Amino acid sequence: MNTVTIHSPGTVANLVCGFDILGLALHEPCDIMKLTLIDEPRVVIHNRDAYYLPTDPLKNVAGVVLLAIMEQEQNRFGFELEIEKHIKPGSGIGSSAASAAGAAVAANHLLGKRYSTDEMVQFAMLGEKLASGVKHADNIAPCILGGVSLIRSIHPLDIVSVPAPDLYVTVVHPQIEVRTSDARQILKQQVLLKDAIRQWGNIAGLVTGLMKGDYDLIGRSLEDVLIEPVRSILIPGFDEVKRNCKEAGALGGGISGSGPSVFMLSKEEHTARAVEAEMKAIYDRIGIDYHTYVTTVNKEGCTIVNG
Amino acid sequence: MNTVTIHSPGTVANLVCGFDILGLALHEPCDIMKLTLIDEPRVVIHNRDAYYLPTDPLKNVAGVVLLAIMEQEQNRFGFELEIEKHIKPGSGIGSSAASAAGAAVAANHLLGKRYSTDEMVQFAMLGEKLASGVKHADNIAPCILGGVSLIRSIHPLDIVSVPAPDLYVTVVHPQIEVRTSDARQILKQQVLLKDAIRQWGNIAGLVTGLMKGDYDLIGRSLEDVLIEPVRSILIPGFDEVKRNCKEAGALGGGISGSGPSVFMLSKEEHTARAVEAEMKAIYDRIGIDYHTYVTTVNKEGCTIVNG
Repeated sequence: MNTVTIHSPGTVANLVCGFDILGLALHEPCDIMKLTLIDEPRVVIHNRDAYYLPTDPLKNVAGVVLLAIMEQEQNRFGFELEIEKHIKPGSGIGSSAASAAGAAVAANHLLGKRYSTDEMVQFAMLGEKLASGVKHADNIAPCILGGVSLIRSIHPLDIVSVPAPDLYVTVVHPQIEVRTSDARQILKQQVLLKDAIRQWGNIAGLVTGLMKGDYDLIGRSLEDVLIEPVRSILIPGFDEVKRNCKEAGALGGGISGSGPSVFMLSKEEHTARAVEAEMKAIYDRIGIDYHTYVTTVNKEGCTIVNG
Repeated sequence: MNTVTIHSPGTVANLVCGFDILGLALHEPCDIMKLTLIDEPRVVIHNRDAYYLPTDPLKNVAGVVLLAIMEQEQNRFGFELEIEKHIKPGSGIGSSAASAAGAAVAANHLLGKRYSTDEMVQFAMLGEKLASGVKHADNIAPCILGGVSLIRSIHPLDIVSVPAPDLYVTVVHPQIEVRTSDARQILKQQVLLKDAIRQWGNIAGLVTGLMKGDYDLIGRSLEDVLIEPVRSILIPGFDEVKRNCKEAGALGGGISGSGPSVFMLSKEEHTARAVEAEMKAIYDRIGIDYHTYVTTVNKEGCTIVNG
C-alpha cells in the first residue's frame, strides 16, 4: 500500500487551567490528508483548499515533518501530500498541529508503523516549531492519541492519556487574528506563588474530575487565574461569552490554545446547542464574523480512513 | 454514649509536587484521644504523654477546636479530653492536624454526626491556625477522610478524595527542629512561569498516576522544582537520603509537610524496608537522632474505636 488517507482532528490546548500541559481532541473540524510514498527523495505538497499555505516543504508544517522522516529513512524515498484543510490556520484549535501530526501518523502507517507514539510526537513537534517558534505538544499529543492528553514533561517527553467522560464541546472562532507569538509574549515570566498554587489546585481538580467523571468538579476546576486574565483582552466579547455560556449551562471553558477561538464544555448536547446560540448572539451583536462548532471529544485522534 | 475513643493518624502533606494542595494519611504513627461530653460548658484537657503540650484550651490545638464546637452549640455542654500523642509535635507528619481533626471528628460523633465533613474540616483548621498561623487543610483533610486528599481550593473550601493504589510509606524523622513558619518564610513569593508549568505537569501526572495505579508515572511525577530546592537546605542529609532511597527502589519522595521528616513511597514492603535501612545508615553516620516508620496509606482516616 503506497497511499493512505487520514483524518486529522482539531484540538483544544490548555483546557483553561492546564497551560502548556493539557489538550483534547475534537471530532470537528478535521483535516483530510492523502499521503503517497514516491520513489524520488523529495516532498511534494498540493493544497486542496483555499488557505494558500506554502507548498515549499521547508515552509510547510507538514512538509518539515515529512522531510525529517525522509532523512531518518536515509532519503530512500519521498512523499507526495494532498492537504484539504478544514481547520482554519490561526483559529486556535490546532490547525498546524493537525497538519504536522497527520503527516507523521500517515507516514508512519505507510512505513509499517515502525515509529512509536513518542517518536511521532517528536517528528510532529518540528511542525509546531516552524509554526510558532516553540516545540510544544499540547495540540500534537491529543491530535495523535485522541481524548485528553497530559504532557507531563517536554524534556524528557512524557505524554499520558487522561481518561475522560463523554463531553460536548462548543467552539466559536471569531474571525480576528491573534498570533501565537503575540499571545505568548504578553504573558508575565514571573507569577505569584499563591496564584500558582490556586492554578495547580484547579489542574489537579480537573484531572481528578475527568477521571472520576465528576462533571461538577470539572466545572469548578475550569478556572484560570494566570493566563486568561492577560490573554482574554485580545478577544473581543470574551467575558460576556464566558458569562452567558455558563448561565446557559456550560460546565465552563475559556480560550482555546492561544485564541482567538473560545470553547465551552457541556454535559448534554442540548446545553452545547444553547451555548452555541449564546456565542452567535454575542458576535452577531458585536459585528465580528465567526464560525461555530458543536462537537464531542474525539477519543481516537488521527484516523486512517483508507489505506 | 457520652465518651468516645478515636485514633487520629499522622499525615504527609504536599506529596513533593503538590504544595499546599495534596496530602495522604498514614497508618502509623497515630494519636489516641478519648473525648467525653460533660455538663459544664468548659474544655478540660489531660495529656497522657510526655510532650508537655498546653492544657489551656485556648493554647491547645484540640482545645480551640472543641471551644468552637461548644460555642456553635450555644455552650449547652462541655468536653473533657485525654490525649495520648504518638505523633511527635514538630515532626512534619501532621501532629497538630491529628489533634485538631481528631477532636472535631470525636465531638461530631458524640453529637450524632450533625456536622458535614467540610464543617469538621473548618473546625479543625482553627487548630492549624493556632499551630502555624495559617488555616491550611492539606493535613486535616486526609486525617479526616483517609487516603489521598486534594484541597482544590481553601476559599471556598473544596476537598476531593483522590483514589490511590496500595502504597508503602517510609518516613524518617531526624530529631531536629524546623519551624513551619520558618519553612514558609524562606519561600520566594514569586516563581518563574516555566517552573510553575513544570510543577503543575508533575501534579497532573501524580494525580493521574495515583488514579490509574501507574506506579512508574507516580515515581516520575514526584519531582518538585519550586519548594524542595529551597526547603531541603534546612534538612541535613536530605539529598543523600533521597538519592540512596531511590537507588534502593523507592518510587520517589521528599520533605513531609514543611519537614524535618522525609518520606518515600514504595510499591512493595521489602523495598520500603530497604529504604528504611538507607535512612538509618545515613543518620547513624551523620550522628543525628531519628525515628523511622514503615507503614501504608491509611484509607479510613480518623477512626472511632470505642463509643
